[in-house]
Amino acid sequence: MTKGVMVTIREVYVESDPNRGNMVILKENAGGDRFFLMFVGEAEFTAIAKEKGLVDSKRPLTHDFYLSIMEKAGVEFLRIEISEMREETYYANVLCRAQQNDFSVDSRPSDAVALALNRRIPILVHEDLFRRKLTAEEVKEYEGLVKMVKF
Amino acid sequence: MTKGVMVTIREVYVESDPNRGNMVILKENAGGDRFFLMFVGEAEFTAIAKEKGLVDSKRPLTHDFYLSIMEKAGVEFLRIEISEMREETYYANVLCRAQQNDFSVDSRPSDAVALALNRRIPILVHEDLFRRKLTAEEVKEYEGLVKMVKF
Repeated sequence: MTKGVMVTIREVYVESDPNRGNMVILKENAGGDRFFLMFVGEAEFTAIAKEKGLVDSKRPLTHDFYLSIMEKAGVEFLRIEISEMREETYYANVLCRAQQNDFSVDSRPSDAVALALNRRIPILVHEDLFRRKLTAEEVKEYEGLVKMVKF
Repeated sequence: MTKGVMVTIREVYVESDPNRGNMVILKENAGGDRFFLMFVGEAEFTAIAKEKGLVDSKRPLTHDFYLSIMEKAGVEFLRIEISEMREETYYANVLCRAQQNDFSVDSRPSDAVALALNRRIPILVHEDLFRRKLTAEEVKEYEGLVKMVKF
């Protein structure tokens, strides 16, 4: 279990910047000062933007495909938790229920957020991950990463 | 159900071309003449390349994430079928089993192939979709599509 206070997210924003890449910003409320920011790949960005109604797709995206299997298999989702950062990488868990068993699955935060928006389940972020301003050096490093690898 | 003869695939190749985009080629055997070719997005290409051991990822990709939930929820996969083309788009089905119920889920072929490679289940392609050579015009159109939209 994650130690510390988990904060419930009420606002999810997406922003695509030609230089910095695709960003997802989570806030506890629209007016709040602190925020959680993550850089995500193209497909994950599209999945999140689609859940927000910003883009459309004729065919099921990877998330849509798997979530339709889950629905038929009776898998439920309880909440997602973005719990920690290790080596410049954020980690998330998704809490699931199947046949009366609860279990937690390791996830990238981008997949977890797309799922949470689709299933309308709570998004929780560890408060230590808020208000973390990126240094100019980190932004540069992320830019390189986003350009080099797409996941 | 799909009419016509379904062909079992034994070979999956991936190729990334800076001009044409990411391609996945399916063949019934290594020496065979006929083949099935599809253009796929960046994330789907990475997922398929990962299953073939060509790339690595420290964190679970979207497929890995959902497949680990499926495993815990007891969802099984029987086979995938790339069954038809409509309006320049290929369609696939994934046959699943959960709690003794079999069901079929609509999928993009790229997601279905990544899943099939991961779960080592049969990949079937409708024989009418083989040997379809792209015209220069179609290649050009696909190029534009791959560049414009990422899914």
